[in-house]
Amino acid sequence: MTEGTTHADGMDWTDPHCPVARTLDLVGDRWSLLIIRDAMDGARAFTDFQHRTGIARNILTRRLRHLVERGILDRHSAPSGRRQVYALTAAGRDLFTTIVSLRQWGERHAFARDEGHSLLVDESGVPLPELRPTDSHGIPVDVDTTTVQRAN
Amino acid sequence: MTEGTTHADGMDWTDPHCPVARTLDLVGDRWSLLIIRDAMDGARAFTDFQHRTGIARNILTRRLRHLVERGILDRHSAPSGRRQVYALTAAGRDLFTTIVSLRQWGERHAFARDEGHSLLVDESGVPLPELRPTDSHGIPVDVDTTTVQRAN
Repeated sequence: MTEGTTHADGMDWTDPHCPVARTLDLVGDRWSLLIIRDAMDGARAFTDFQHRTGIARNILTRRLRHLVERGILDRHSAPSGRRQVYALTAAGRDLFTTIVSLRQWGERHAFARDEGHSLLVDESGVPLPELRPTDSHGIPVDVDTTTVQRAN
Repeated sequence: MTEGTTHADGMDWTDPHCPVARTLDLVGDRWSLLIIRDAMDGARAFTDFQHRTGIARNILTRRLRHLVERGILDRHSAPSGRRQVYALTAAGRDLFTTIVSLRQWGERHAFARDEGHSLLVDESGVPLPELRPTDSHGIPVDVDTTTVQRAN
């Protein structure tokens, strides 16, 4: 793999030509994506992740190791030297768009009108506008107006 | 739940106030998201999904049932009446933004420069521009310039 790609040598890809499938092979389970969400929200130590997700220790240990191996998280010693902390790599930080899209879909479809939920806000405290794919002219596109071209 | 929300009554939410977590509870596993990807790309019958993903029959059966129960897919009889077909609901179609974000991250991070991959193109055959979250003024934002506000 070239610089800038994740460290995914030796991966047994489900569908090698499809970028959706490769991403899901790397981070496509609920716990991995919740760990990434929490790392974006400031979690660094094992116990931070454990408290926020409620995930079992053995599963958390395995998921953190996979995310390090796959180039999504870096592990290093805290300044005190007494514990390990985790930080998102550049590739991990770049999952921000995906986490925002999961959040916004959830806001639209997974809450009743009277249920409260957390909000992602900008530096002025204003919620982000909805992400919508567009064509190169800025016109919104959807399932009906786009096509997947297979790799050669 | 109100109209427009998925049929998720009785869900045991991992983190009830977080829209990211609720979405992952509904669709956050690799197979579910690949099934949704394939439904967006025209898969309708059980065998379509089976051939495209290579998923085992028993897992596919269970995932399709969950996606119907959760309001992401509708199941109905084909015009011939001899088999069941699946179509995305409005909530399922609205996962397009998430699928596009997974695709674009994969294009950036899960392929070496010399590896071919499929492309998602608009009606003119042009790949979609990169999705990037912005604030309400259209300025790009990232992990450092956004904050999660907890629900009250």
